[in-house]
Amino acid sequence: EKATSDPLKQDVPPPLLLFIIFYYLLCGCGGEMSSKPPGSVTIGPPAHPGEGPNPGGEKTNLPLVTINYPRIQIPFEITLWMLLVSFAKIAFNIYHKVTVWVPESCLLISIGLIVGGIIYCVHQEPPAALTSDVFFLYMLPPIVLESGYFIPIRPFFENIGTVLWFAVLGSLWNTIGIGLSLFAICQIEALGIQHISLQENLLFATIISAVDPVAVLTVFEDLSVNEQLYIAMLGEYLFSDAVTVVLYNILASVKNMPVLEPVDFFLGVAGFFIVGLGGMAFGFLFGFVAAFTTRFTHQVREIEPLVIFMYSYLAYLVAELFAMSSIMAIVTCAITMKYYVEENVSQHSCTTIRHTIKMFGSISETLIFFFLGVVTVTTKHEWNWGYILFTLLFAFVWRSLGVLFQAQVINISRTVPFNFKDQFSLAYGGLRGAVSFALAFTLPHDLACRQLFITATLAIILFTVFIQGISIRPLIEFINVRRTSPNPDTISVEIHCRLMEHTVAGIEDLCGQWGHFYWRDKFLKFNNRFLRKILIQDSQAESSIVSLYKKLELQNAMEILDMVSGDVSLLASDLKKMHDILSKNMYKIRQPVRC
Amino acid sequence: EKATSDPLKQDVPPPLLLFIIFYYLLCGCGGEMSSKPPGSVTIGPPAHPGEGPNPGGEKTNLPLVTINYPRIQIPFEITLWMLLVSFAKIAFNIYHKVTVWVPESCLLISIGLIVGGIIYCVHQEPPAALTSDVFFLYMLPPIVLESGYFIPIRPFFENIGTVLWFAVLGSLWNTIGIGLSLFAICQIEALGIQHISLQENLLFATIISAVDPVAVLTVFEDLSVNEQLYIAMLGEYLFSDAVTVVLYNILASVKNMPVLEPVDFFLGVAGFFIVGLGGMAFGFLFGFVAAFTTRFTHQVREIEPLVIFMYSYLAYLVAELFAMSSIMAIVTCAITMKYYVEENVSQHSCTTIRHTIKMFGSISETLIFFFLGVVTVTTKHEWNWGYILFTLLFAFVWRSLGVLFQAQVINISRTVPFNFKDQFSLAYGGLRGAVSFALAFTLPHDLACRQLFITATLAIILFTVFIQGISIRPLIEFINVRRTSPNPDTISVEIHCRLMEHTVAGIEDLCGQWGHFYWRDKFLKFNNRFLRKILIQDSQAESSIVSLYKKLELQNAMEILDMVSGDVSLLASDLKKMHDILSKNMYKIRQPVRC
Repeated sequence: EKATSDPLKQDVPPPLLLFIIFYYLLCGCGGEMSSKPPGSVTIGPPAHPGEGPNPGGEKTNLPLVTINYPRIQIPFEITLWMLLVSFAKIAFNIYHKVTVWVPESCLLISIGLIVGGIIYCVHQEPPAALTSDVFFLYMLPPIVLESGYFIPIRPFFENIGTVLWFAVLGSLWNTIGIGLSLFAICQIEALGIQHISLQENLLFATIISAVDPVAVLTVFEDLSVNEQLYIAMLGEYLFSDAVTVVLYNILASVKNMPVLEPVDFFLGVAGFFIVGLGGMAFGFLFGFVAAFTTRFTHQVREIEPLVIFMYSYLAYLVAELFAMSSIMAIVTCAITMKYYVEENVSQHSCTTIRHTIKMFGSISETLIFFFLGVVTVTTKHEWNWGYILFTLLFAFVWRSLGVLFQAQVINISRTVPFNFKDQFSLAYGGLRGAVSFALAFTLPHDLACRQLFITATLAIILFTVFIQGISIRPLIEFINVRRTSPNPDTISVEIHCRLMEHTVAGIEDLCGQWGHFYWRDKFLKFNNRFLRKILIQDSQAESSIVSLYKKLELQNAMEILDMVSGDVSLLASDLKKMHDILSKNMYKIRQPVRC
Repeated sequence: EKATSDPLKQDVPPPLLLFIIFYYLLCGCGGEMSSKPPGSVTIGPPAHPGEGPNPGGEKTNLPLVTINYPRIQIPFEITLWMLLVSFAKIAFNIYHKVTVWVPESCLLISIGLIVGGIIYCVHQEPPAALTSDVFFLYMLPPIVLESGYFIPIRPFFENIGTVLWFAVLGSLWNTIGIGLSLFAICQIEALGIQHISLQENLLFATIISAVDPVAVLTVFEDLSVNEQLYIAMLGEYLFSDAVTVVLYNILASVKNMPVLEPVDFFLGVAGFFIVGLGGMAFGFLFGFVAAFTTRFTHQVREIEPLVIFMYSYLAYLVAELFAMSSIMAIVTCAITMKYYVEENVSQHSCTTIRHTIKMFGSISETLIFFFLGVVTVTTKHEWNWGYILFTLLFAFVWRSLGVLFQAQVINISRTVPFNFKDQFSLAYGGLRGAVSFALAFTLPHDLACRQLFITATLAIILFTVFIQGISIRPLIEFINVRRTSPNPDTISVEIHCRLMEHTVAGIEDLCGQWGHFYWRDKFLKFNNRFLRKILIQDSQAESSIVSLYKKLELQNAMEILDMVSGDVSLLASDLKKMHDILSKNMYKIRQPVRC
């Protein structure tokens, strides 16, 4: 609690101080300081909040400079790490050509490997910063919130069936396929891994089945591949969490159950629905309350963004508390509240919310990939060629088979089917990343093969991020995947889309078929009649056409403004002349006189 | 580190769970949980990160719901507290009439008193959340950053002399005056406080000399009192920190020095300059580097705000590390970088930076006043009528005398002197607040009269905030303090101001007098020739006229936009008609047929 007056009190010259700070930084952040001598170096009186000065009571003069590093250590080091990765990000993007061909995640991992190497040389312990709790409670939420908040709503709901199909079935397929195959491999005596049980293999398979295609999505966006592909990839990422959580929990607890009863199977299936739907329920609840809260914030515009972040985070935390799917909770919360919140809050708050969500998402992701590099070097590894190579092989094979099979089934009911090129992109885009990494570190410490699993997980992450991540852009360009021309929003397009949707809804109604458009129409009516009246402050029925018009108008204003600032010479030539008259002629007359 | 599997495993019905969470919340946040039974209640498998299930090994079915509260406790409770005070803030502002007459700080303290009362009834311990470290490292920086970032630059530099005069001399005057008077009072035997030494009295006087006029500044702004008064108040708040830190450190360390040597006096004076100028130096350094960094962020717009926040915070932390004036560091950093940063970053980033700074400042302040109320109830008090009443009296008397005396001296050199009404407002506006509160809790625990000092500090804060805070608005309106008509920025005003400044600079040069305008002109030249070239990305010399033009243009665009959204009916009447045709006529035809 109270900083104790420490034995290490000595005069230290200023250059040494910087070294001491850097040394402590490298030696380990967070709570690991207790084993080291406390870093409070006093060349002066105690720091700002008066800690007791040295108790010896001998005469000292008023000291001039005090240094109390442990007091500021935690925020200081977090800030430094964040600045460090920000620098890395800025540096990569100065040479924009690099990031076009090598994904940022690869570059960040590389930097992490270098920093990890330095830490390893200086001191054997890794920075204590990245525990699995830090990851799940602080670093993952911003990333998922970003994905959820900026999910393209319309294509998402148009493809909701496909998304869920790939997310749920894909995860199950991969886990079971990889788990069983690896268990089969474990029976080969030459590999020396017969001690790994079926459950442990399945647990490992669960970990490495979680895809993290952020790098791939960036590529998809850059090349503007067709929307269906993009949404299928993003949806799999966001909605496979429920499956992963349930499988992980079952397998981690099944370890201690000698006999599996049939009831356990049903409990498992029920668990899946509870975890998934429970997460969604929390998301709905908090999203609804968040939207409702912003109805009343028009007098306190400055805290509007905070309210949004707090509710989203609360949805995530409460879902975590009940071991529900926290990712689904925060995504649902974001989707639920976005529409209403953005109409309630001011233009400035809206910009701040969007920008801040992007900011935190971006920095969390950057930190994770950086730490992934660091931890790769500083963790103790247990390397087994056979197991790791087979893991890589099976992960790829089962994903490809899975996508092929699932696409055949889902194509039956799709208007625009996934062609072979799409299927290839989906299969090849299955990078593993942050979630697998964090799950690996949450493995129980009493697991015999924990070390091996962590090594194998890091191997598959590095392999997919580097090899697949770098090669996917040229491959997609080469096989020429279907693209969509990014059509700009215009009032005309909006009106015609709406007309068509109404027409189709009418036709569906006539045919007696309750399809997508029917439900969409029902929801819009319900929305206008009840939800908008409850959740929106000025609930005058503003049509989406008007809001689009507003959006275009703002965009236009911003563009004009940027043009003005970019091309000052045109507008400012007259002003410039006057400025010259004022600042040069009038004042400079005096100068020759003085010289 | 690792959540241990706990003995408390039982089935708990859902309603009870909410109660348990609420109970834990009330019983104490933060790290105080260890003395209680761990709150992990399992009705299901272990939570997301696989903790070991119960070690007993007896047969259990797959559990369905798990609750692991301690894991999410810290972020969960921080989020809840923040939401709670946000609600309070929203509630006050729904009835805007309340906050006009009663400052928000009063209302928040009242709410805090109520919550504190509830906590006191349920459980005797206060929430552990607000230690002095939490205050100085996490809650104060956002508040000061807000004040520093939005400081009105031009009036500030025009009144820099006055500001420093009031800040430095005022703090010294109050501390010495109050300290000596209280020491004199302590000699009265009837009060029973003869054990309080001179040094302890001076230490206490230092604590309660720190003014916190945020509530007053809001009133000043609302009533648009003259700029000089506003700046003098704000400047005293921001720049008295150096004096407070030095005095506090000297007095806290002097306690252990039996003999004061003359050299200690000089060291004290030197300490003041080191602490003040050192803080400013760190601020300059980080502000400069921050501005330089944003030169290169045009490819990574999303992290621009983060870079700004990190640098400001780093300036604060490094100043804290070396026991310099951290407040001066962060204020200087903000002033230094603001101009350059806002030209480098995108329009969206700029909005986000401003909005986020306001947001964090606002929420920190809200939290502090709320906790002040809570702590007032939950702290153990040592009440001494005499000491506390005399403290209130002396604080008011010495401040009034100080302002009167300092104003007479400073008025000699001022073009626009402080009249008597201004002086009264300055003296009456000296509310005590957050800084005094936190400093009181940093008092060494071995101080015999710590309890009494804390009680007296809380008393003076509550007295000034409630009595003076509520009465200052009617008083200022009654005595009719000089006001400035808020003149809108126009190109014409800007040009004429500039013309006048150039003229005066020329005249000053002719007279051989190096006044304010001379130095201003020198700085602008230096800025255009060197600083802008180093710090700004597109360093085309953009005159302030052009940037004003841009600002006005943007403001205009925003206004037009708000008008459009506010008055939809005008623009949208045609669209509305089409919408009606689409949604009602076409679709509703079908409905009568089905009914």
